[in-house]
Amino acid sequence: MAEPYSPTARTRVTREPERAVYDRAAAYQVLDEGFICHVGFVVDNQPFVIPTGYGRSGDNLYIHGSAASRMLRNLDQGIAVCVTVTLLDGLVLARSIFNHSMNYRSVVVLGTAVAVEDSAEKLQALRALSEHILPGRWEESRQPNERELKATLVMRLPITEYSAKMRTGPPIDNEEDYSFLTWAGVVPLQMVAGSPINDPKLDPKTPVPSYVPSYSRTVAK
Amino acid sequence: MAEPYSPTARTRVTREPERAVYDRAAAYQVLDEGFICHVGFVVDNQPFVIPTGYGRSGDNLYIHGSAASRMLRNLDQGIAVCVTVTLLDGLVLARSIFNHSMNYRSVVVLGTAVAVEDSAEKLQALRALSEHILPGRWEESRQPNERELKATLVMRLPITEYSAKMRTGPPIDNEEDYSFLTWAGVVPLQMVAGSPINDPKLDPKTPVPSYVPSYSRTVAK
Repeated sequence: MAEPYSPTARTRVTREPERAVYDRAAAYQVLDEGFICHVGFVVDNQPFVIPTGYGRSGDNLYIHGSAASRMLRNLDQGIAVCVTVTLLDGLVLARSIFNHSMNYRSVVVLGTAVAVEDSAEKLQALRALSEHILPGRWEESRQPNERELKATLVMRLPITEYSAKMRTGPPIDNEEDYSFLTWAGVVPLQMVAGSPINDPKLDPKTPVPSYVPSYSRTVAK
Repeated sequence: MAEPYSPTARTRVTREPERAVYDRAAAYQVLDEGFICHVGFVVDNQPFVIPTGYGRSGDNLYIHGSAASRMLRNLDQGIAVCVTVTLLDGLVLARSIFNHSMNYRSVVVLGTAVAVEDSAEKLQALRALSEHILPGRWEESRQPNERELKATLVMRLPITEYSAKMRTGPPIDNEEDYSFLTWAGVVPLQMVAGSPINDPKLDPKTPVPSYVPSYSRTVAK
């Protein structure tokens, strides 16, 4: 997967270029750990940014269309989008305000998203999306019927033009600031799952499936 | 703060309107709990979505400009942006795939962002940003000097045209699906802070300030 990749003028990281990662495998690791993206699109010159779930299948991103009502008018021809996935790893506390930062990993994918119309591909895409968010859940759920498939919008975005950016490690202060007396370091941040809450309508004898209490995004897929 | 607010055609929530919240206080609660936004803007008809830190001061959002290099060419006149803040609260597991969902709170702010040029306002904005992310940190850090202030880009976006959307509670299944035998409920998700990691260059006798180990976003400001 670690194929070489040349960024375009649109995806070359111009600020803090030392944080850029142009490696498909590294980008996919970020895409696979996240499951919420922010989709940007333009209507009447106004940008919109909407959060939604996504899945990856090979070199395609599948974006759940629940966010997409405003995009609908353009769907036939596809629509220019930017899909951004951000994983926040920590607050970076430096001695100087200026050098405060965050540890994060993010991927930006540019391209044209098109609606998935074919029923078989749509079902496969929904499965990819579901398994991406919660592996194992698809098989244990009531599968989508024709009416539901029709009512669900899924968009496909090829992962062709993209960039990844990350920051890790301790703060970097100016040399003359290291004598400034304040705590400095990293406050790690992580998204964690709490104890599952039964649906009040659930038969309380129903066992909690193994993929629920062990839920974690950081396990490699 | 709970002033009435009429959404515009651009911010009226058209999908799942029952999830819409047009209340300034509710929107501000989301903005105050989050600290990473996704900023959308348009360059040559291509939308870009970039994560960055932000702060709120009254009815203005201040956006850190580290993300903004691609926006620079338009800064003099301001630039149309969409700033979206999303808090993810849980995975919602229904019996049917179709009714799977997420619990979340999100705010979308549309408008024109302008660069803060005035030194005093910029300093005040950076302070708002810093205190928004980590209350108490500003006073204990080495303050920005003139050179750093000049090198920092901060943008101001009035919170005028916005919408908020949220989903809470258990899954809602179709009546006929409640007999389907699978676990259903909510897996709560939360961003939590881990144990602080000292900068290797820090004098290990330096005490960890109280705002670090107790770090939490859910405490009301």
